[in-house]
Amino acid sequence: MHSAASTTTPLTPALVFENIQAFQRTSALKAAIELDIFRAVGEGPGDLASIARHAKASERGTRILCDFLVVAGLLEKVDGRYRHSPTSAAFLDPASPSCIASIVKFLTLPDVRQSYECLADVVRNGRTALPGQGTVAPENPVWVEFAQSMAPMMAPMAGPLGSMVLQGRTGAMRVLDIACGHGLFGIEIAKQNPQAHVTGLDWAPVLRVALENAERAGVRDRYDMLPGSAFDVEFGGPYDVVLLTNFLHHFDPDTCVALLKKIHAAMKPDGRIATLEFVPNDDRVSPPMPATFALTMLTSTESGDAYTFNELSDMHRRGGFKDITSQPVPMSPHTVVLARASK
Amino acid sequence: MHSAASTTTPLTPALVFENIQAFQRTSALKAAIELDIFRAVGEGPGDLASIARHAKASERGTRILCDFLVVAGLLEKVDGRYRHSPTSAAFLDPASPSCIASIVKFLTLPDVRQSYECLADVVRNGRTALPGQGTVAPENPVWVEFAQSMAPMMAPMAGPLGSMVLQGRTGAMRVLDIACGHGLFGIEIAKQNPQAHVTGLDWAPVLRVALENAERAGVRDRYDMLPGSAFDVEFGGPYDVVLLTNFLHHFDPDTCVALLKKIHAAMKPDGRIATLEFVPNDDRVSPPMPATFALTMLTSTESGDAYTFNELSDMHRRGGFKDITSQPVPMSPHTVVLARASK
Repeated sequence: MHSAASTTTPLTPALVFENIQAFQRTSALKAAIELDIFRAVGEGPGDLASIARHAKASERGTRILCDFLVVAGLLEKVDGRYRHSPTSAAFLDPASPSCIASIVKFLTLPDVRQSYECLADVVRNGRTALPGQGTVAPENPVWVEFAQSMAPMMAPMAGPLGSMVLQGRTGAMRVLDIACGHGLFGIEIAKQNPQAHVTGLDWAPVLRVALENAERAGVRDRYDMLPGSAFDVEFGGPYDVVLLTNFLHHFDPDTCVALLKKIHAAMKPDGRIATLEFVPNDDRVSPPMPATFALTMLTSTESGDAYTFNELSDMHRRGGFKDITSQPVPMSPHTVVLARASK
Repeated sequence: MHSAASTTTPLTPALVFENIQAFQRTSALKAAIELDIFRAVGEGPGDLASIARHAKASERGTRILCDFLVVAGLLEKVDGRYRHSPTSAAFLDPASPSCIASIVKFLTLPDVRQSYECLADVVRNGRTALPGQGTVAPENPVWVEFAQSMAPMMAPMAGPLGSMVLQGRTGAMRVLDIACGHGLFGIEIAKQNPQAHVTGLDWAPVLRVALENAERAGVRDRYDMLPGSAFDVEFGGPYDVVLLTNFLHHFDPDTCVALLKKIHAAMKPDGRIATLEFVPNDDRVSPPMPATFALTMLTSTESGDAYTFNELSDMHRRGGFKDITSQPVPMSPHTVVLARASK
């Protein structure tokens, strides 16, 4: 066992304190987004009075909140004035094209947070505190919020993912985008290949979000919808490409294999599947984002997980796929697993 | 304005994501303490099955929780087995004499957390969402929980603080410990000077905790109680030493000055006051712990704050004190402000 005496720098309980108080950071960032603080800081001049006026908030509250955000690395303070940090300028100011502030809505939904209020019980029981299948229950409205608010975070990955999947292939092709959500990944394939025809599969209310995005991207005429559960609906096909993004982590391995078999049956010989996932290393404690994603699956599902590449590879093999490889996706904590239908 | 292009390393939204998800860390540490995970890890052998058995919890939940704690720096994982990190060994294992796991109780009390659920409103209004004076309302039961659960965190400071206050002075002396809570600071003076007589002031239910600690420290015969509010009760005296620890931050400067004047009137000529506080630098954004403590005061009080040394110095001067100096307290994020009654 380690002890305080065995370390060279004096050991303090700061890390314990910081972890216990971490909930303050969620609340502070959420409040700052609600109060439009990041737009106010971007517009300048950054003095307390003008930020408080913009936020329609007290100066005491605004000063304490902004100081907290500086400590959290989400603002800077110079000579008593607040200005953007590189992170807040790029990702939190609504004036920035790469602003992802909307993700706070999905990530702090009551359904998403509920299990954390009784996490010891969740760990005891080994499953979400939500009833039934948790967030993957049929027609769960959280997925409409996901499709709407998480899209800005997913958008930067779409281009690189599209290139990885197409690898220069052109010509007519049929693409199935399973649990498409915002639809951005399938839409990107349609943008990169003008002869690609995409079918988006998700709950009907979610598909309306995907359809709006397809309209906006100018690919609506090559975008079809398949409403329902990936486990129940008839896929049709056969498809050249299947996208399976952020989906397998909600289920146990056997359920994943059953789905992969169903997908395999709907693919052309030599068709390609691209599975986007949070993929931790075999130690399951690195890198930080994929590793900690397992907690999100514990709290929101019955039996989901963040699977390692070895586990995903095994599932794909059992599902009928071959030539299974993985690549990190630039600008994201995700990994894409690529494989070919072996027929 | 900064932009992603102006930085040399690629800018990712990881910091935004990390701050939004920070609430997970509070819940994970709280659950691990409730499930007695840190004792299980300390006792070994550290394999998942035996930890889950000790915690009476599912293996899925235990594995995902423990992996999360590794990422948070609160455990280590080697060859698939969990073991203590230096921090968890010293501060989270109940077998360690310096364990502070109990602080999670006070720091996640519903009253403490309530304002964070509507933090944007709190910032708008510039005051706690709790009714009236917030946590400093008369007889608020949170202070019994504070006295009980925060004592292990305060204990390591008591010795150094006692030495700073006494500076070798011996002989008969009367000490007033205002808002004494756990009582550890006054008790330490009584331990360091066998002729010191200490009067602890706090709400009556809190004083019962202090009295138990005085009993345990063997100084009960030199420990008196003064139940009530520091603003209302007659202090008696005159005192040689007054301890004013973690108290001024709950109030606005004028209220602090009024209290300091009342204290001054109850002191012997040349008596010493020791004010323990979270003291940020003039920029109010450093060091991290004193700076972020202001948010705790925003969310729990009407008009409290984390005051800078200049502000505290000014309050003490207006209260009638001279020779005002400050010193950091070893093993803590606190600073002690020392001053003499000028009579």
